[in-house]
Amino acid sequence: FTDPATLKQREAHVEAMDRLKRIYKAKIRPLEQAYKFSEFYASELTDGDFDARPFVLLVGGYSVGKTSFIRYMLERDFPGSRIGPEPTTDRFLAVMAGRPGQAEGVMPGNAAAVDVDRPFSSLGRFGVSFLSRFEVSELASPILDSISFIDTPGILSGEKQRVERGYSFEHVVEWFAERADRILLLFDGNKLDISDELKRVIESLKGHDDKIRIVLNKADMVDPQQLMRVYGALMWSLGKVIRSPEVLRVFIGSFWDKPLNATGAGNAELFKSEERDLLDDLRSLPRHSAVRKINELVKRARLARVHALLVTHLKASMPILWGHKKKQERLALRLTDEYSKVQKAHGLAIGDFPAVDKFKGGLEAFDLSEFPNISKRLVDVAEGALSRDIPRLMLAIGMNAEEHGRAAHAAR
Amino acid sequence: FTDPATLKQREAHVEAMDRLKRIYKAKIRPLEQAYKFSEFYASELTDGDFDARPFVLLVGGYSVGKTSFIRYMLERDFPGSRIGPEPTTDRFLAVMAGRPGQAEGVMPGNAAAVDVDRPFSSLGRFGVSFLSRFEVSELASPILDSISFIDTPGILSGEKQRVERGYSFEHVVEWFAERADRILLLFDGNKLDISDELKRVIESLKGHDDKIRIVLNKADMVDPQQLMRVYGALMWSLGKVIRSPEVLRVFIGSFWDKPLNATGAGNAELFKSEERDLLDDLRSLPRHSAVRKINELVKRARLARVHALLVTHLKASMPILWGHKKKQERLALRLTDEYSKVQKAHGLAIGDFPAVDKFKGGLEAFDLSEFPNISKRLVDVAEGALSRDIPRLMLAIGMNAEEHGRAAHAAR
Ligand SMILES: Nc1ncnc2c1ncn2[C@@H]1O[C@H](COP(=O)(O)OP(=O)(O)OP(=O)(O)O)[C@@H](O)[C@H]1O
Ligand SMILES: Nc1ncnc2c1ncn2[C@@H]1O[C@H](COP(=O)(O)OP(=O)(O)OP(=O)(O)O)[C@@H](O)[C@H]1O
Ligand SMILES: [Mg+2]
Ligand SMILES: [Mg+2]
Repeated sequence: FTDPATLKQREAHVEAMDRLKRIYKAKIRPLEQAYKFSEFYASELTDGDFDARPFVLLVGGYSVGKTSFIRYMLERDFPGSRIGPEPTTDRFLAVMAGRPGQAEGVMPGNAAAVDVDRPFSSLGRFGVSFLSRFEVSELASPILDSISFIDTPGILSGEKQRVERGYSFEHVVEWFAERADRILLLFDGNKLDISDELKRVIESLKGHDDKIRIVLNKADMVDPQQLMRVYGALMWSLGKVIRSPEVLRVFIGSFWDKPLNATGAGNAELFKSEERDLLDDLRSLPRHSAVRKINELVKRARLARVHALLVTHLKASMPILWGHKKKQERLALRLTDEYSKVQKAHGLAIGDFPAVDKFKGGLEAFDLSEFPNISKRLVDVAEGALSRDIPRLMLAIGMNAEEHGRAAHAAR
Repeated sequence: FTDPATLKQREAHVEAMDRLKRIYKAKIRPLEQAYKFSEFYASELTDGDFDARPFVLLVGGYSVGKTSFIRYMLERDFPGSRIGPEPTTDRFLAVMAGRPGQAEGVMPGNAAAVDVDRPFSSLGRFGVSFLSRFEVSELASPILDSISFIDTPGILSGEKQRVERGYSFEHVVEWFAERADRILLLFDGNKLDISDELKRVIESLKGHDDKIRIVLNKADMVDPQQLMRVYGALMWSLGKVIRSPEVLRVFIGSFWDKPLNATGAGNAELFKSEERDLLDDLRSLPRHSAVRKINELVKRARLARVHALLVTHLKASMPILWGHKKKQERLALRLTDEYSKVQKAHGLAIGDFPAVDKFKGGLEAFDLSEFPNISKRLVDVAEGALSRDIPRLMLAIGMNAEEHGRAAHAAR
């Protein structure tokens, strides 16, 4: 992670995100603010959302080696980490590059969630019982300049853990999964266990199949024939849990800094190739992350435009309704008709329209008269971003058509 | 397959089946014949059904190496075999030990199906278009004294094959699967392809999951890392097709007489262990087969007893119905009540009773008056077989309680 190619990629990523942030602030956010976008769909994007390194989320049973894996990637210990054969990690830990001139250390979740420079503000919704189980570990390590890691508590089987937590593990994992660029699902080759709890968590990751990679860790603890059995059993079970017909990539090896166990040494070559592939995969994340964020912003900008046209159309076409809550409610029932009208009038794609329920839900909280009339200027500015600024940015980072399509599809 | 242990097991198997055949003929068949068992449930057992060696059924896509696999097991060529990179085997081929003093060669399906000494008589139901695509290859080879093989045409993807065959491939495979002691599903590690056609065939094997083993063949044609990918993809897909949560055993290797390809030579040790395990598995078949046949006969004898008691109960309890077809039909509607009566009167297990539909279907073809009254002698003789002769036979072959339970369960 200190070779010139990686460094160059990282720089390109930082610069692209900076440009994207400026486009958002100058050309899209004004439109969002004018028509209360954030109260309908998603909160305003903060600097943290753009500046954040791509996340790698680690998920797995207890003691599979999640914390050791991160330690191995950092090539050093990190503040707040504990490693041991019993369930050790009892909190979510974001492992990130420290800020210049600041001491290394652990920042409590409560503090991290109110810091707009960090991408954790919306974690507040999980309440204090979660925030007291969340920390940010800041330190210097070459790999952290490119990516961040999220360490998580190991999943135990049985109901106990679930009851005691006071927050929904699945929902928190979902929150991170949505924002992660890579989800590593770790398994212990020496003690394969796919508990019902783990299955539930894997199911909660659906929709993010393209981000998931499997790590079959501690693979040197068993002999090559046993490894085949374990690996086969893993794929057999995962194939049942994950609906995708495409096979998930599995990286097989032993991801810590100790030498290989003699039992599995016959697979040394395999483990080496696998580790190389895994590192290549992680190296590609900054670029993927840039592509993903650009595509998400395109999607968001399109929605913001449609949203502005929609609410102003509703307001304009029925001035008689001003303030008539009842009639406005009836109007909401006819939304699909109104969608078609707006779509035709402005030549929009129906795929850019919000789900009727979501839009209606937002609408109920407002009186249409509260919205300003359509501002052609704001819409034109946002359209300019979509038709000129963002395509130029894509060109600058060398994004190809296929990536564009795939990422746009994934964002949907 | 010429070592003393294998030879001894084979002899024990032959002797046990001989005793079983005698028990059937002397003590169970008379009861079956008296109450038309074969016209309700399953045709009479022939000598061939008892004398047949355990079958190994090979199934897979074309060119995965099924015919080569059999050739490798026989350590020689066999009459009627063709091996080649294009779809070659175009028929079902039963590869069996030739009879003493007879020349080696191929016997056409039509002839084999009318030979009561062979277990193929009920194949006649698939018609001449199938029988002209079925052959028996007879030859001498040590392994054939213990087990027989069924070679099958490779499964092609696309509709063409299905239309041209003139018989139902799935139904024929089902016929063999039901009678087989082992089903080997072969895949080509160098060209993994799980077509929809193959999936359909695998699905038609359900109910026989315990007999299925997977062979990942030609595994030396890819390097160890690629092999992992292929194997993983195989398990991923199979896990989706086969409902069982228990992982099927996969044997990974290259099952022909050529030396290993250099590409996969790194896995030589693994392949050797896998081949050893596969041979051990095949060696255990004669014993398994004996256990299975005994359990099937127990089940059959129990059903024959219940059947005799049922029809005679119906006949005896309503003499007024003799010949009254209409009323007999109404009676059939009340069968579950009659089941309870017979069950209580004779202290029978409800699990031994035939499915109501099946029994009713048989009943419709007969007039109750055609059945003789209950013969206490025939029932007692059959009960004697169940309570004394068969348990003694089980003891003789050293069958333990667990095997008994498992096999009985599988036979259900
Ligand atoms: N590659 C490896 N091979 C063998 N043992 C390992 C490997 N990685 C970690 N371990 C050992 O496994 C145990 C658990 O490691 P670690 O604490 O990193 O797991 P974890 O997944 O973070 O567990 P938890 O869910 O409890 O936080 C430790 O004893 C550690 O030394
Ligand atoms: N273990 C092996 N490694 C590499 N090649 C093999 C192996 N076994 C067989 N082959 C080659 O694969 C091809 C197909 O073999 P074979 O005819 O035995 O397959 P099959 O499954 O019986 O095909 P079909 O379904 O057409 O009957 C032949 O060219 C054969 O030489
Ligand atoms: Mg940990
Ligand atoms: Mg063949």
